[in-house]
Amino acid sequence: SDRYSLLILPGDGIGPEVMAEVVKVIDWFQANRGMAFDVSHDLVGGAAYDAHGAPLSDATMARAQAVDAVLLGAVGGPKYDALDFGVKPERGLLRLRKEMDLFANLRPAQCFDALADFSSLKREVVAGLDILIVRELTSGIYFGEPRGIHSDDNNPENEGGRVGINTQRYTSGEIRRVARSAFELARKRGNRVCSMEKANVMESGILWREEVTWVHQQEYPDVELSHMYADNGAMQLVRNPRQFDVIVTDNLFGDILSDAAAMLTGSLGMLPSASLGAPMANGRPKALYEPVHGSAPDIAGQGMANPIACILSFAMALRYSFGELAAADALEAAVERVLAEGVRTADLMTPEGGRPVGTAEMGDRIVAAL
Amino acid sequence: SDRYSLLILPGDGIGPEVMAEVVKVIDWFQANRGMAFDVSHDLVGGAAYDAHGAPLSDATMARAQAVDAVLLGAVGGPKYDALDFGVKPERGLLRLRKEMDLFANLRPAQCFDALADFSSLKREVVAGLDILIVRELTSGIYFGEPRGIHSDDNNPENEGGRVGINTQRYTSGEIRRVARSAFELARKRGNRVCSMEKANVMESGILWREEVTWVHQQEYPDVELSHMYADNGAMQLVRNPRQFDVIVTDNLFGDILSDAAAMLTGSLGMLPSASLGAPMANGRPKALYEPVHGSAPDIAGQGMANPIACILSFAMALRYSFGELAAADALEAAVERVLAEGVRTADLMTPEGGRPVGTAEMGDRIVAAL
Ligand SMILES: CC(C)[C@H](C(=O)O)[C@@H](O)C(=O)O
Ligand SMILES: CC(C)[C@H](C(=O)O)[C@@H](O)C(=O)O
Repeated sequence: SDRYSLLILPGDGIGPEVMAEVVKVIDWFQANRGMAFDVSHDLVGGAAYDAHGAPLSDATMARAQAVDAVLLGAVGGPKYDALDFGVKPERGLLRLRKEMDLFANLRPAQCFDALADFSSLKREVVAGLDILIVRELTSGIYFGEPRGIHSDDNNPENEGGRVGINTQRYTSGEIRRVARSAFELARKRGNRVCSMEKANVMESGILWREEVTWVHQQEYPDVELSHMYADNGAMQLVRNPRQFDVIVTDNLFGDILSDAAAMLTGSLGMLPSASLGAPMANGRPKALYEPVHGSAPDIAGQGMANPIACILSFAMALRYSFGELAAADALEAAVERVLAEGVRTADLMTPEGGRPVGTAEMGDRIVAAL
Repeated sequence: SDRYSLLILPGDGIGPEVMAEVVKVIDWFQANRGMAFDVSHDLVGGAAYDAHGAPLSDATMARAQAVDAVLLGAVGGPKYDALDFGVKPERGLLRLRKEMDLFANLRPAQCFDALADFSSLKREVVAGLDILIVRELTSGIYFGEPRGIHSDDNNPENEGGRVGINTQRYTSGEIRRVARSAFELARKRGNRVCSMEKANVMESGILWREEVTWVHQQEYPDVELSHMYADNGAMQLVRNPRQFDVIVTDNLFGDILSDAAAMLTGSLGMLPSASLGAPMANGRPKALYEPVHGSAPDIAGQGMANPIACILSFAMALRYSFGELAAADALEAAVERVLAEGVRTADLMTPEGGRPVGTAEMGDRIVAAL
């Protein structure tokens, strides 16, 4: 059968620890399901900066372009806070997203039944929550030019004498392609898309609304489409998140809203993400998978991090890169089974909850449940 | 004693209804506390568009510049959804903010004890919540140039052929002045400021962080300052909002985060706001006060809207424009007393809660409690 090539970039903080558990899962699928993965490892973020003086080397970038899928752990940490903007750990991740043209960032916000009580929201508001945020990931204010900090000396009214600039810039084509991703995904779920922007304030938001509407009318009239201002979206996510099925929004709003949505579930250590681009020659999309949580420097190196978000990110790779739907389902079911048995890493414990398992034991239990 | 001049702009939807109750409160203070208000009324938003073809006439703008304080109800409604961007109801509000140079938007997010169960968050997460978001209101992506939608015809890769642009632009002076407002306010509260931006992604966020830090070191070293990325800020507001005292952030992040924070309290119909600018010749700041809720077209004209947010906005005017601290306290106490007595408008009712009072009765009860 086909071989699947994977580039693993563990990155910083808890990244290497949680990725080690993914490797166990990959090995299990190779040993027991006849899959063949070509796995290579490389550096990203602070780890790459320490080795090469840049958060992503050109060689690593070239490798990422050549594989079927990239698995990334996490980037960043206080050690790198004082670095220049251009070499901060985050720039490595942003370079991958941009150069691989990973325009559709899928962020499921799911509330796991066994964990509903971890949410700061009432159980009846979040139980069974299952929404998918599709965030545009290669454009908008993250990448628009002009940008930078300049001196503004001939403006005597500007105390401090500097000006900071970023540009939100969206083309109709960029909006249409991510809208199509959202509509396609909605068809396989609840068949509803809510598009969020600030069309009442921003012209780029007007274009967003118009182009999403155009794609809907021309190509996906069977899907239900609604529009919401992003500030109201933030409110509605807090008030009644289950009203949503798929949300599609731009890079910056997606950053904020998907983090808020992730926190609603109470399961931040559980949430995976996929970033997808155009199909490659072999028909697979360019793809990068990573947990939603960050590098968690406070607990790094202690073997206590929850590896589930990273393992579920690999499940997304099985589904979206390799079309291994049965394997993806089996892996997700194994995670649910282990949780249902009461196995918990420290982040999933109530004070009265007994002894937490470590990162490695959680990984082993999930492999055993497979 | 001094005369206080007020311009009342009820606006659209429930704006006129809730403002009528504020007028009762103003009359009470005139009759019983020896205050003298010169009150004039005018149009804003859709109501102004219907009358003049613009959401704020030049004459109204000039009046707003001349008074001590503007009280605004709400703008917008489905009737105006198809209007051109430049004459939408929101533009009237944005013009007031910009031309009056109301750079500091104060949005308290308070959880009223009697209403804690209305929050979608657990009572123990929000009970006693009292945070103040200070949002920059006259700059950033709301107003930066260049902006607009253009054709992009000589870019064959851009399906659709258009491009939408907005510009985030902050000067150091703009950041410093709103930072000073936040530090001043913090000194009168919990003495802590958390500044939010995306300095890991946006240069304007780096400038924001540097200038806030500069003001802190030079002028407010006694206040505790922390920094947080805005996406993490959204998470932390959901996870544990009581960790914050004062939050200072830019126009767009402030729009999103303050709406999320407002919804946490479960008391959207209760939350006021103040937008303040530089001191005028008489020492009072340029000022506009408005409820956080919108025009609520679905319930407009039915006499069922909750007037408390608008009444508490007037309490903020008493405090910040007129220095009438005792009167402001008394008005806020009257609202609390009426709530403690169980008087509820429809938005504050549980299904089992009995008969709600209407807008006018709520206003009367508050006046009676004064
Ligand atoms: C690390 C950072 C650059 C990144 C972003 O802002 O996109 C992160 O917050 C995310 O959401 O993946
Ligand atoms: C009505 C709209 C223009 C406004 C804004 O975006 O600032 C509103 O959402 C607010 O927060 O006051």
